[in-house]
Amino acid sequence: MIINTHFGEIPQSYLFSEVAERVRRYEAQHPDAAVLRLGIGDVTRPLAPAIIDALHAAVDEQATASSFQGYGPEAGYAFLREAIAAGEYGSIGVDVSADEVFIGDGSKSDSANVQELFSLSAKVAVTDPVYPVYVDSNAMAGRLGTFDGERWTGLTYLPCDDGNGYRPALPAAPVELIYLCSPNNPTGTTMSRTELETWVAYARETGAVILFDVAYRAFITGDEVPRSIYEIPGADEVAIELGSFSKTAGFTGLRCSWTVVPKKLRRDGASLNAMWLRRQSTKFNGTPYIVQRAAEAVYSAAGSAQVQADVDYYLANARLIRSTLEAAGLNAVGGEHSPYVWFRCPGGMDSWAFFDALLERAQIVGTPGVGFGPTGAGHFRLSAFNTAEATQEAAERLARLIPTLV
Amino acid sequence: MIINTHFGEIPQSYLFSEVAERVRRYEAQHPDAAVLRLGIGDVTRPLAPAIIDALHAAVDEQATASSFQGYGPEAGYAFLREAIAAGEYGSIGVDVSADEVFIGDGSKSDSANVQELFSLSAKVAVTDPVYPVYVDSNAMAGRLGTFDGERWTGLTYLPCDDGNGYRPALPAAPVELIYLCSPNNPTGTTMSRTELETWVAYARETGAVILFDVAYRAFITGDEVPRSIYEIPGADEVAIELGSFSKTAGFTGLRCSWTVVPKKLRRDGASLNAMWLRRQSTKFNGTPYIVQRAAEAVYSAAGSAQVQADVDYYLANARLIRSTLEAAGLNAVGGEHSPYVWFRCPGGMDSWAFFDALLERAQIVGTPGVGFGPTGAGHFRLSAFNTAEATQEAAERLARLIPTLV
Repeated sequence: MIINTHFGEIPQSYLFSEVAERVRRYEAQHPDAAVLRLGIGDVTRPLAPAIIDALHAAVDEQATASSFQGYGPEAGYAFLREAIAAGEYGSIGVDVSADEVFIGDGSKSDSANVQELFSLSAKVAVTDPVYPVYVDSNAMAGRLGTFDGERWTGLTYLPCDDGNGYRPALPAAPVELIYLCSPNNPTGTTMSRTELETWVAYARETGAVILFDVAYRAFITGDEVPRSIYEIPGADEVAIELGSFSKTAGFTGLRCSWTVVPKKLRRDGASLNAMWLRRQSTKFNGTPYIVQRAAEAVYSAAGSAQVQADVDYYLANARLIRSTLEAAGLNAVGGEHSPYVWFRCPGGMDSWAFFDALLERAQIVGTPGVGFGPTGAGHFRLSAFNTAEATQEAAERLARLIPTLV
Repeated sequence: MIINTHFGEIPQSYLFSEVAERVRRYEAQHPDAAVLRLGIGDVTRPLAPAIIDALHAAVDEQATASSFQGYGPEAGYAFLREAIAAGEYGSIGVDVSADEVFIGDGSKSDSANVQELFSLSAKVAVTDPVYPVYVDSNAMAGRLGTFDGERWTGLTYLPCDDGNGYRPALPAAPVELIYLCSPNNPTGTTMSRTELETWVAYARETGAVILFDVAYRAFITGDEVPRSIYEIPGADEVAIELGSFSKTAGFTGLRCSWTVVPKKLRRDGASLNAMWLRRQSTKFNGTPYIVQRAAEAVYSAAGSAQVQADVDYYLANARLIRSTLEAAGLNAVGGEHSPYVWFRCPGGMDSWAFFDALLERAQIVGTPGVGFGPTGAGHFRLSAFNTAEATQEAAERLARLIPTLV
């Protein structure tokens, strides 16, 4: 065999591609339908004025030899690494230095690539349901055994549902890599300080490494929810943290992210900070200069006020979706500190059946929970990333549809 | 072991980091020295006006909800895939369809990532000297055995020097992946049609896959040099081709590339086109929309004339460097169809000794050939990516220095 046979073991359709395909088919058959998209987590608000201004200014710099920027540092420009260290960490009393912050082109790439630092025999645990990229990137590397139609034989699943209040239990058997995400994609739930302390203690005791995804941290509205795993003492010896400008500042089409790899994080005598620097220096050539300037503008006075207004706008949508579902008698989580609302499908329907019903009878696109893992079966995700008007209209349609399905 | 131990086997310093460090040290000690940089292959001309205009227009689209672009297709927008299929392939009579073209964020990422499609036991061959990313990305994956201080035990080196006229011989023992690059980085030499036919025939016979890097194709000035491996009949069953806007259009800081994976390319019953689509869909979220619009502008009437003028400017520098070295009695290759000139160091000096002499006695930064592989020992690379004035000044300094070293 010359090819990587692990590719062939991964279930064919990537969740969002299948959703897109079903929507495409429906719209082709119903060209006049007013389909409302509350599915994929893509933002809808345009870039904030301060970000647009920063982009134009940076583009102009690229037009003149004296200010032209070619290859940048692979780990990112110091101006942005420092802005993130101060704006995301110093601001919450957490000590992260600029050379622990690496600029990437998106949390999808970073969270897919970070597994390269680890042995192919490292045991992996994910919460279930989970962002599919953590699983598929490890599957492609050959770390997960074989797929039995529902589960990977070599992957530890940590179920999260209303049975345990969406609080994953510690693994029963030892694991070495643990992916956690708070606020969670897809469930919209958050991890409390006590819960995080438990995980950090587990990792410190066992030598496991936590990969902590904070892509949605901008949606946290109160200090009782940790915004970074490094708020927990000792986490800088056990955790890598992944952040993103995609949802915070509407960068889904602009592409910028960061990864914190603390210098205190060492395993088997090696510095993971040095390993990630090596990985990025060898296999990546940096995020575009103009994009890094745009990200820097997120921390300006005008920029931060503008992006906060957008986050607030989406949070209002999220609250409306959750309250609509609850009024219809469903048990929903998320929708606070998060743009996602997660719930069991009405009437015991399975995820794809509810997807089809929602699309065909209410012209709403959501995301089938089963696409996020076996415990997601029978669940569903709706997203707040749409206009207030479309969300209002969707809420009305949901309020009409759900009682007919229960 | 929880970590990927292959990282620790790779020689510590990445070539260009070591060069940067020595230059930094020299400049700190000699703050008034007028150092001329002919080392790293970074462009110096600003972005062309048509590209700047396209960027501003695309940024403005991102400022309004109705034209805002969020997540794009992971494989790239159709407008750019079509522009490349027509502009790079249709234009030279080669049939490549848009869905065989994938947009990336740089040839460094693409050429580092492409090895993921292949088995960890696949045998790899590289020309020597070679662009270090091909080697290091395979070493990190664990495909190359151990490093003995000079060579990887599991890697097939195909030496290229004046002894064989820079034409690599076919591998003596079977290999499965072959990295070729024309115009070559670092030697600046090109592969003829006959030579490429030999390689395509070899791959067709043995089932090997050729990874063909055309990052420098814009520097080719005559039709006698192939611009794409697909000019050779049957290559679409054996080769992946990697292209870049970095050197063509000054995108080193803007980041855009393309990879062609023909639909006819199949191995072990699998379509490599489908595998690459899967890889990119799972681990990448697309090149920024504004950057893809900028790349599209390279194919406009104004854009193509402007970027051609920049390429011509660098080619004039390259010719001057080569003729200066030849006038000083050195045997130089490259510098035509290429921004790079490659030569044996004068007086039998080794690469780093010549690097230091050039820096300390002529204040010129070049790249030590040994950094590109064992056959690069005693060789050196100079690049045309500087202003005409700086190149002229460098030529005068070289003409004075070299006779003192022979």
